[in-house]
Amino acid sequence: MANFHDTPSTPSPPQRTPGTGERRLAALLARADIALNGSRPFDLQLHRPGAAARILAQGSLGLGEAYMDGDWDCEQLDGLIQRLLAARLQNAVHPPVLALARLRARLFNLQSRARAWVVGRAHYDLGNDFFAAMLGESMAYSCAYWADADTLDAAQNAKLELVCQKLGLRPGMRLLDIGCGWGSLLRHAAEHHGVQCVGLTISRAQAEWTQQRCQGLPVTVKLADYRSFEVAPGARFDRVASIGMFEHVGNKNYPAFFDVARRALKPDGLMLLHTIGKTRHHEATDPWIDRYIFPNGQLPTLGQITDCVDAAWVTEDVHNFGADYDRTLLAWHAQFRQHWPRFAARYGDRFRRMWRYYLLSCAGAFRARAVQLWQVVLSPTGVPGGYRRPLS
Amino acid sequence: MANFHDTPSTPSPPQRTPGTGERRLAALLARADIALNGSRPFDLQLHRPGAAARILAQGSLGLGEAYMDGDWDCEQLDGLIQRLLAARLQNAVHPPVLALARLRARLFNLQSRARAWVVGRAHYDLGNDFFAAMLGESMAYSCAYWADADTLDAAQNAKLELVCQKLGLRPGMRLLDIGCGWGSLLRHAAEHHGVQCVGLTISRAQAEWTQQRCQGLPVTVKLADYRSFEVAPGARFDRVASIGMFEHVGNKNYPAFFDVARRALKPDGLMLLHTIGKTRHHEATDPWIDRYIFPNGQLPTLGQITDCVDAAWVTEDVHNFGADYDRTLLAWHAQFRQHWPRFAARYGDRFRRMWRYYLLSCAGAFRARAVQLWQVVLSPTGVPGGYRRPLS
Repeated sequence: MANFHDTPSTPSPPQRTPGTGERRLAALLARADIALNGSRPFDLQLHRPGAAARILAQGSLGLGEAYMDGDWDCEQLDGLIQRLLAARLQNAVHPPVLALARLRARLFNLQSRARAWVVGRAHYDLGNDFFAAMLGESMAYSCAYWADADTLDAAQNAKLELVCQKLGLRPGMRLLDIGCGWGSLLRHAAEHHGVQCVGLTISRAQAEWTQQRCQGLPVTVKLADYRSFEVAPGARFDRVASIGMFEHVGNKNYPAFFDVARRALKPDGLMLLHTIGKTRHHEATDPWIDRYIFPNGQLPTLGQITDCVDAAWVTEDVHNFGADYDRTLLAWHAQFRQHWPRFAARYGDRFRRMWRYYLLSCAGAFRARAVQLWQVVLSPTGVPGGYRRPLS
Repeated sequence: MANFHDTPSTPSPPQRTPGTGERRLAALLARADIALNGSRPFDLQLHRPGAAARILAQGSLGLGEAYMDGDWDCEQLDGLIQRLLAARLQNAVHPPVLALARLRARLFNLQSRARAWVVGRAHYDLGNDFFAAMLGESMAYSCAYWADADTLDAAQNAKLELVCQKLGLRPGMRLLDIGCGWGSLLRHAAEHHGVQCVGLTISRAQAEWTQQRCQGLPVTVKLADYRSFEVAPGARFDRVASIGMFEHVGNKNYPAFFDVARRALKPDGLMLLHTIGKTRHHEATDPWIDRYIFPNGQLPTLGQITDCVDAAWVTEDVHNFGADYDRTLLAWHAQFRQHWPRFAARYGDRFRRMWRYYLLSCAGAFRARAVQLWQVVLSPTGVPGGYRRPLS
């Protein structure tokens, strides 16, 4: 059940006259073809009228927090968020918290070595069993590839195979995975392509899980920040991958990130970067996501990536399959909902609402194409004869 | 025969002691594994010792001009240039002319409306029969796509079809081609995809030729700078393409270029940009190319493109097939050499050497992967459900 402890206002009788906040909120939502208390599945059902003013004052943060508190509901939360973003309603509300977030990101290195471990403990160490239930067999916590797949496991497998094909893995090669998560790529590359793998993660839970599931395979996992990883020139890797970790790097650290990757890679090697990206440079990190899901995350624009690799890399290929994240998140949500009874007592209902809001609002954002998913293939000096993206 | 009128020095006897300039040039070339007067096909044969000092003093400009003047020769000019670039020898010579070129580009809009016609007259109006002989049946003066092709005509046809597939052309659609050249895409799209086409060019010779060869097809050609092209909101295009024209736009005009394209396109449309790109932001336009081949050209970095489309577009796909330009340029050179006897009297031998240097030095630059060829697919708000690059 919803937890109302944050909302002092009492439920209103159905026949009362809407207040100013509700009228303003209704007018704003109408611009996205969403009705306040309407009958369509993506309409917003306001349980606590007082929440309208809070949403208007705090924008995205207020909307998410009010949802967690049970102030409103929506059957198709993803459809609601998609409509809000497609109508660019986020531009109509300029909550002061956004300006503060921008200033904070400008002044501080939010992803410094000391701070980098925060997200490991806050998010990735939540519980391996919980992520296993949501993510399915692959334990891949990044966008799956649905071009020719019908199930989450098949789509994650297709994504891992796509990465291996793009990297042109061959038996005997050595692969470094920066931010290896629960080791899905390490295991796939070692098992199916005969590759020796090293993975880096800042989550103790991920490191332990990965070592466990890769027993018997040539896979090593290091609990280390990418900045502290040093490779001797003689031990450089044939390939470097980074799947769904760049979102935590932060633009102040992009040069350091690509430096580490470049120094770890042989001159004739290949790197694949898989990352969520934002479409517009001026957009700040969503304050709700920052507070509740990924502390100190920051999405790059494609321009920030390509500007950064300018001096030391050739951009061989850029593949955008952001719309596939919509399906991935819906699949995670379906598994999350199915397995929730096992976790209800451990995490509580406010967590359940938070997690639902996280998965479905992100699904809506990808469906609205407001955020992107890029796979970028880089080579230090250009592949002789050119690089061809494998057909898939 | 070579024209020596620019070189006051006389040929040296074979047994003379090399001067300082020759020794320094030989030492520099040795770093790229090129021998001065060596016996391999990519070695540099110096006919006029005095040219060594000129090449050292003027870098790329001096090398090209000395070649035009017959001061040196090379059997595999493309292999020589590839080695020079792969060894990054251009960084060892810092001719003052490069700094001047950078300053000039910073201070002036070299691609202003008034100046834009210069390249039309200087290059594209050289003679339709001359370009027809070099470019082959398609008359496409941009990188061909050799993934599954063995001849120039087949590879150009594959490129045109690749563009049409990427744009998802369907009968009845309307296509705008900004910088349509001799109309190869217009004709292909109209003939094979039932599309109504409008092309823009600033070359009178190209406009006339295109109208001629597209008779009976729904193709219109306008002799107009892209900045003066206005589209009424009701007459917006389903698709916009720009193939090998962006190299003339200049970074001061990128925003205007994308503005014109955006205003010409329906909100659910697609745009394909096909352009040569430079790998490193700080690199200036090659002064020899600027003086003799493409006045006021400027290659973009991928970062300049993606930064520029940031606010108003979603980058759906980026495809780099720069290595295919090597084969394209070699094929053009083969046809140029074969048909030269028809044009020798009209253009003269200094032109022949200039043109050979242009085609083969560019082939070497693409082979060294020092320059790139990008096809970028853009949509105004993101294709619903995602964009998939067609398999090709």
